[in-house]
Order: sequence, then structure tokens, then C-alpha cells
Amino acid sequence: QCGVPVAPHQVLHNAADLSAVPASLLPGILKTTRLGYDGKGQVRVASLADLPAAWAQLQAQGPAVCILEKRLPLAAECSVVLARGFDGQMVHLPLQVNLHRDGILRLTLAPWSAPTLQRAAARHLRRVLEHFRYEGVLNIEFFVHRGRLLANETAPRVHNSGHWTIEGAATSQFENHLRAILGLPLGATRARGHAAMINLIGEMPSREQWLGNRELHWHDYGKTARPQRKLGHITMLGETARERDTAARRLLAAIDPAGLREWRARTR
Amino acid sequence: QCGVPVAPHQVLHNAADLSAVPASLLPGILKTTRLGYDGKGQVRVASLADLPAAWAQLQAQGPAVCILEKRLPLAAECSVVLARGFDGQMVHLPLQVNLHRDGILRLTLAPWSAPTLQRAAARHLRRVLEHFRYEGVLNIEFFVHRGRLLANETAPRVHNSGHWTIEGAATSQFENHLRAILGLPLGATRARGHAAMINLIGEMPSREQWLGNRELHWHDYGKTARPQRKLGHITMLGETARERDTAARRLLAAIDPAGLREWRARTR
Repeated sequence: QCGVPVAPHQVLHNAADLSAVPASLLPGILKTTRLGYDGKGQVRVASLADLPAAWAQLQAQGPAVCILEKRLPLAAECSVVLARGFDGQMVHLPLQVNLHRDGILRLTLAPWSAPTLQRAAARHLRRVLEHFRYEGVLNIEFFVHRGRLLANETAPRVHNSGHWTIEGAATSQFENHLRAILGLPLGATRARGHAAMINLIGEMPSREQWLGNRELHWHDYGKTARPQRKLGHITMLGETARERDTAARRLLAAIDPAGLREWRARTR
Repeated sequence: QCGVPVAPHQVLHNAADLSAVPASLLPGILKTTRLGYDGKGQVRVASLADLPAAWAQLQAQGPAVCILEKRLPLAAECSVVLARGFDGQMVHLPLQVNLHRDGILRLTLAPWSAPTLQRAAARHLRRVLEHFRYEGVLNIEFFVHRGRLLANETAPRVHNSGHWTIEGAATSQFENHLRAILGLPLGATRARGHAAMINLIGEMPSREQWLGNRELHWHDYGKTARPQRKLGHITMLGETARERDTAARRLLAAIDPAGLREWRARTR
């Protein structure tokens, strides 16, 4: 509606709509349109024959409007934190690139140096904020497909992929959200150095061990450990993207080797 | 005792000690040796004849050991935040230069580019920390007199002159204090850019007005306004010292013109 490109998809309100899905959308992903997170509310669908079972699975928690979205080969996934103030002023942070594994965000690198995409993102963001007359911080995730941004989903709030802004930006996403909803002027969104945010998932690594790495910012949410649960995150800062990447790779090698392999596969 | 130079002075335990003060220490400043702050616990003494009245004034709140310190022409006042961990590891932040008015800290600039003094400070700090086998964050203030550092006073805690470290250093003085007393490894103390910390004293300026300056970090302590009371502070960051100074001068011109005149007089 506001002119931001999205992947080919079809909206499904009820079981009767399933029969109208064209085969061209398969293989696809069936997604609830609200409250999905960490891979929840999504089911991969290989063929039309698999669609009813996937639909039944997502309706098990109660009726939910879904979309069936065509699976596309993605070059990357990225996102932007943006804010709109009371008076209509808009700011956005630099584009950040995200790495997921098992549907859960593992790593965010910011700023992501991709000037053409950054300009496209800025245009899209402005349209979304104006369309909704949104006030506060919003996060929009994009797929990068054939050099273009396709909007994936949005979180109308501060977002995990923006946690690097606490140390890595002139104003954190949390402060700008408060400024926006309190009717105060928004703060600067310039990046301060090059940040990597690494999620701590399922279990916390040894605090004593990792705090010895003196350039690392440790965030422990104080939650009970549980498989696939986000328990905290680490932000690492470098003067250059290369310095940041080296430090982040070393940390990932120890605490999330599968995440590191995924990162290497993406950037090969 | 630990070999750090101080100004010429004499310790005064009781009224009888006053008669032993040599005239060479005048004009001087009579200071309580503990719990002084914001100009409290200090009286200027022009001549030996004025000493008994100054002594009586400082004893009015109860008996206090004092020193009479010779007044010296000072090129600057500076300080350092340092920390010693459980295991004896020591870190210190870069030297910061401080500007006082009416005995109250108005402005801190950090890092202060004065390599020779920085090296001297590092030697002095090590001696103090080892002497006391101190654990936690400590702040030491120095006078700069004829190109040398003379220790003035120490605050065995986080200190106002170290508040710039919240945004301006890799690890804030607060985080390093917690790390030290929790027996955790200490964090990096590198400066991130060039910081100016400006105290908000007596009354808070308009939040709405100043937050519009988008590179400024606003700290409101939520205290009741009272003359000469520290109610908050602002930290401004620049990519260069010049950029930081320009921004800080503009802010001071509006909220503390007398502080700005003092700064200009110091740096002329």
C-alpha cells in the first residue's frame, strides 16, 4: 500500500483461501501476519500438497491470518532502526546486516556499507513512517534479493537487531524511543565506530572468561537458561569494520561455531 | 609516603599546632583532610594573623584534622580515574583537565593531550594504588605547577570529573568499579572520541531546547534545584578536540557564561 516492494505472496484468511494459492508461490513459507518471532509463526511449505498441514499447524493456537510467501534466494538479510517524533521529524540509523540461524537472530553488523541499498532503505522507511503516522521507534527487516530490498517484517518497537546502538550509535534506539513518545527532539543516529552484536542463546558463556576481552560490552538479561532462548548479548566495537569482524569471528568461534560457519558461507 | 609530589603544607591536629606554621606557607588554603567537596571544607588564608579565625570556622562542625597548604599559581587542574582489581591489575583512563568556579567543578575535557604529564600521572597512580592495596575506582586530582603534577586530593570512588566516561570511554568508571569489586576483569579504558562534561548547577536548563542539539548526552539527576547544587550534567562528544571545544563553548555561552570566561582566561 505504501509502495515498498515485498516478496510474491498471497494472503490467507481461512482454509477456503488455500485452494486459490498459485503453484508459482511454492516452495514457500507460511507465516502468521502478527506476533511471529525467533522462527515462531513460520512453517516452510515445499509443495501445494503440504499447505493444509502447515495451515493447520499455525491455526492450532487460535485463528490467525497468514501469508504464503514465495521462498527466494537471498543475498543477505538486513534491517534498519528508525524513529518518528511527535512533530513528524524522522531519523534512521545506518543499515545493519543480520545473520539468522534456526530462525533466530545470531549476529548483527553495523553499519553495513552498502550505499545503494542504504539510499533505497531510506526511501522505503519514510513511506512506511508517513503511511502509519507512526510515533516512536520502528524496526524494518529487508531481504536482499537480486540487488533489491524486499520488506520482510516490521517490529513496531525497539528490536534485537538494534541493540548495537547502545554503545555503537550517538543515541541508542531506547533513548530515541523515549524521546519520540515524550515529544522531545530526536537524538543523532550516527554510528560510533563499527559494531558487532552477538546474541547469547540457550546458555550464557563464562562471564569471567569473556570480560577479560577488554573491548567487549556484556549484556546479561538475568533470564533462566532454556534452549533457543535469548539470554543476553555481547557488543564488540572496532575502529574499522575489519577490526570488528576479526574480534567477532574469534568470539563466535568459541560460543557459536555454527553461527560462524553460516557467516563464512554468507560472505564467501 | 608513597613518593607522589604534593604542594608545600603543614598538618594541623589542634589549635596548638597553629603557632608552628611557617610564614612561607602564606598565603595559603586551610583544608580539612577528609570529606571536603564543592569548596566545602576549605578556607583561604591570606596571612598568619587570619589563621585562627579560619581554623575556628572549619572546627565549627566538630574536630577535624586540617592541612595548611601554600597557594601556588596553577597552570591547570587535572585528574585521572583509575581502578585496581581484586587480582592487583590496574587500569587508568586518559588524563582529563578540569575547570572549577567557586570551588565547584564546571567543565571536564578528556582526553587532555599532555603526554609528559600523562606519563608522570601513570607513575604516581601506580604508587598510590599499590600503597593502599586499593580495590575499586579511585580519582586523583592534580595541580599543574611549573610543568609538574602535584597531588591535590583523592576521591576513593567514582567521581564527577569521570562522568564523561559513560559515553566517552570504552568502559565507564561505574562499570569498572563494579567489575573491580566483583572480582571481574577490568574493562578497556580507551577514550572514544573527545568528550566535554559540563555540570548543570543550581538550575536545569530547558530540556526541550537543548536536546535539539542532537549530539548531546543529557543527564538529569532528578534532584530539587538549589543554588550551587549539582543537578545534572551534559556530555558532548566530538571526533576531534576542536569540534568538541566548539560545541562545548556554544553550550557554556548559554548556560554558564562565567564558566566560559574562566575557560577562556585559562587557555589564553
